Amino acid sequence: MDRLSLYRSLARPAESRILYYVVDGIGGLPRTPGGQTELEAANTPTFDRLANEGSTGLATPVVPGVAVGSGPGHLALFGFDPTETTVGRGVLAALGVGFDLRPGDVAARINFCTLDTDGNVTDRRAGRIGSELGAALAERLDDIDLGGPVDCIVRHVKEYRACVVFRGGELGGSVADTDPQATGVPPLEPCPHDEMSEPTAVLATEFIAQASAALADQEQANAILLRGFDIFAPLPSFADLYGVKPAAVAAYPMYRGVARLVGMSVFDAEDTIDSRVDLTGAALEHHDFVFVHYKATDSRGEDGDFDAKVEQIELADRSLAALLELGFDVVMVTGDHSTPATYRAHSWHPVPVLVWGPHCRVNGVAAGFGETACLSGALGSLRSMDILPLTLAHAGRVGKFGA
Amino acid sequence: MDRLSLYRSLARPAESRILYYVVDGIGGLPRTPGGQTELEAANTPTFDRLANEGSTGLATPVVPGVAVGSGPGHLALFGFDPTETTVGRGVLAALGVGFDLRPGDVAARINFCTLDTDGNVTDRRAGRIGSELGAALAERLDDIDLGGPVDCIVRHVKEYRACVVFRGGELGGSVADTDPQATGVPPLEPCPHDEMSEPTAVLATEFIAQASAALADQEQANAILLRGFDIFAPLPSFADLYGVKPAAVAAYPMYRGVARLVGMSVFDAEDTIDSRVDLTGAALEHHDFVFVHYKATDSRGEDGDFDAKVEQIELADRSLAALLELGFDVVMVTGDHSTPATYRAHSWHPVPVLVWGPHCRVNGVAAGFGETACLSGALGSLRSMDILPLTLAHAGRVGKFGA
Repeated sequence: MDRLSLYRSLARPAESRILYYVVDGIGGLPRTPGGQTELEAANTPTFDRLANEGSTGLATPVVPGVAVGSGPGHLALFGFDPTETTVGRGVLAALGVGFDLRPGDVAARINFCTLDTDGNVTDRRAGRIGSELGAALAERLDDIDLGGPVDCIVRHVKEYRACVVFRGGELGGSVADTDPQATGVPPLEPCPHDEMSEPTAVLATEFIAQASAALADQEQANAILLRGFDIFAPLPSFADLYGVKPAAVAAYPMYRGVARLVGMSVFDAEDTIDSRVDLTGAALEHHDFVFVHYKATDSRGEDGDFDAKVEQIELADRSLAALLELGFDVVMVTGDHSTPATYRAHSWHPVPVLVWGPHCRVNGVAAGFGETACLSGALGSLRSMDILPLTLAHAGRVGKFGA
Repeated sequence: MDRLSLYRSLARPAESRILYYVVDGIGGLPRTPGGQTELEAANTPTFDRLANEGSTGLATPVVPGVAVGSGPGHLALFGFDPTETTVGRGVLAALGVGFDLRPGDVAARINFCTLDTDGNVTDRRAGRIGSELGAALAERLDDIDLGGPVDCIVRHVKEYRACVVFRGGELGGSVADTDPQATGVPPLEPCPHDEMSEPTAVLATEFIAQASAALADQEQANAILLRGFDIFAPLPSFADLYGVKPAAVAAYPMYRGVARLVGMSVFDAEDTIDSRVDLTGAALEHHDFVFVHYKATDSRGEDGDFDAKVEQIELADRSLAALLELGFDVVMVTGDHSTPATYRAHSWHPVPVLVWGPHCRVNGVAAGFGETACLSGALGSLRSMDILPLTLAHAGRVGKFGA
């Protein structure tokens, strides 16, 4: 029996309330060898108390040595193996802007770009045009008519980024990126990887041509590059797999998108403690599993700003203290990946994780929540996809396997 | 190459003698956060010495967050992946009473139960009738004649439990339980899950009807419930897979059954140190791998009696000291799962494991045998199915892979 079928077959109803708190990019590195990480340097009384009363560990997002993006990082935290369950960037982008994808839709990411008179790419991000212009240009592309049964729907994402959805045909979703990942060369053709995707490639070619025409008056954003084609197929829902009533409280489109993909009810939070607490409280009226996403830790890590990341971790800790007043039986805290400020990017390092609730084993040291303390935590080394089943077990929601 | 084929291809003969000591449900939890578990509270000089001289670790029975039954728990300790190698409760029950199952036999568990005049279940265990009456009633059912080529053979297990084997046809083993898992409702129909199992369901229906007639004079045990249908297919034998001559010393039918399933010679022990030692000594005359099962630790955990479980762990430790006098080269100690007294049931928590013999790595701390000490053990976090190959390696019985 495969892993998810096993967990589905063992799902057991319970009254317990679960807080699944994802502090994006929480894992880090010391500034100097042997020093403290961002999490260790931060003053985090609530994380520390839950770590000492609960069980901690270190989670590898997907496989050792590999940094993950937000999509696979969250799929793992939702119990999926992201090497088996893949979701294209186009689909994530469309879900992230709240677009109501339907099964069979094919989505792709759009980057506005600059081509020279020879048709070579001179800027893959069109001089990083702002969101106002990007939105206006995306609206132009939304007017494109491909002249057949297939609609193309364009939505702006942010700055020079947008997404397109092809809807209405029997389309495959396996088409190569047109982004050449270099300048001084022309965009690539949208080549189909299988027979089903040949009509998609034809439509994409036509769409690109019409886009160039519609953008001809622009100096910077005079063309587009497409990447991350994928067909939308909803994943098994969280409720169906695990028997919980799941909600998501998130301030950023990407995380709302990945939550929608697994059937969570989504509450659009603002990036404040009050908004998070209010919406989590509202979610608890009809849900018993609340995924709360905290973004700014990751952003400060990507900025390379160690001190600002420490500050955000402290805010995330205070935010958790406020959330706990709502009353939860089981609390999980981790990140979808590490984002060390010294590395300025998502990294492959295992992510600190704590599970607090009934029936916790004792950690080897009671040194709060930090990368080094987690090394001797009672959860040991685990894979991120195992965090959810462990959390559900503490909540009394996983039955026994076999007699 | 699959995992078991790999190990089979590497099996290497040796003269070493191995004691594989399974202390059922040995893993536990502290009574209060940060406190000692049953194993840590127990005075266990022999476990502690072997742990400090050997290597320890923590084993996950099947997958994180999932508690296992005794069947899959032991299959994992015998090197199988229990999500791939599944054995129904009926087959285990029949093997457990020493019934000589043949390939193609279909077995199911029987519970005697009480039905009211409307045919609703009022007691799923027939008032827990004693073994004497249970045995007499099982004999009555053994006389049932289904009137075709298929025999049904009934054997008593214990108290209100028995098992039935259907033999002689081309039968499938995939039939739903008739136990409704509730009172005040009638038993379920034995529905077939596939075409092959349709004749089995017809036979089961006829068997249930005849059983009701045969039990009509009983006030309590006036009907039966069937569960755990499965067809018997022998597993690859232990001897064939690993090149050892295996024996089992166990006092309870279930553990004898799972040992027979993998081709062990079974010695029926009583639940005393003397019986265990005598039979292990006898086993060693013609065998070099002895699986000894210690049951009462699990029972006291399920009772929720922390102190009584501590006492049983101490007895298991003394039992091991006596067994060691027989002379072994390699000793393994673990459980098939954890059964914390505070949880009163099999739990998902990893199980302490120790391997003692030549070539042991040193643990991080020399703090004896306990859940927290095992966190920094030299074996690390492992899966229960990996314990056997590690044990065999220390016994010089696993060859090199590749040149």
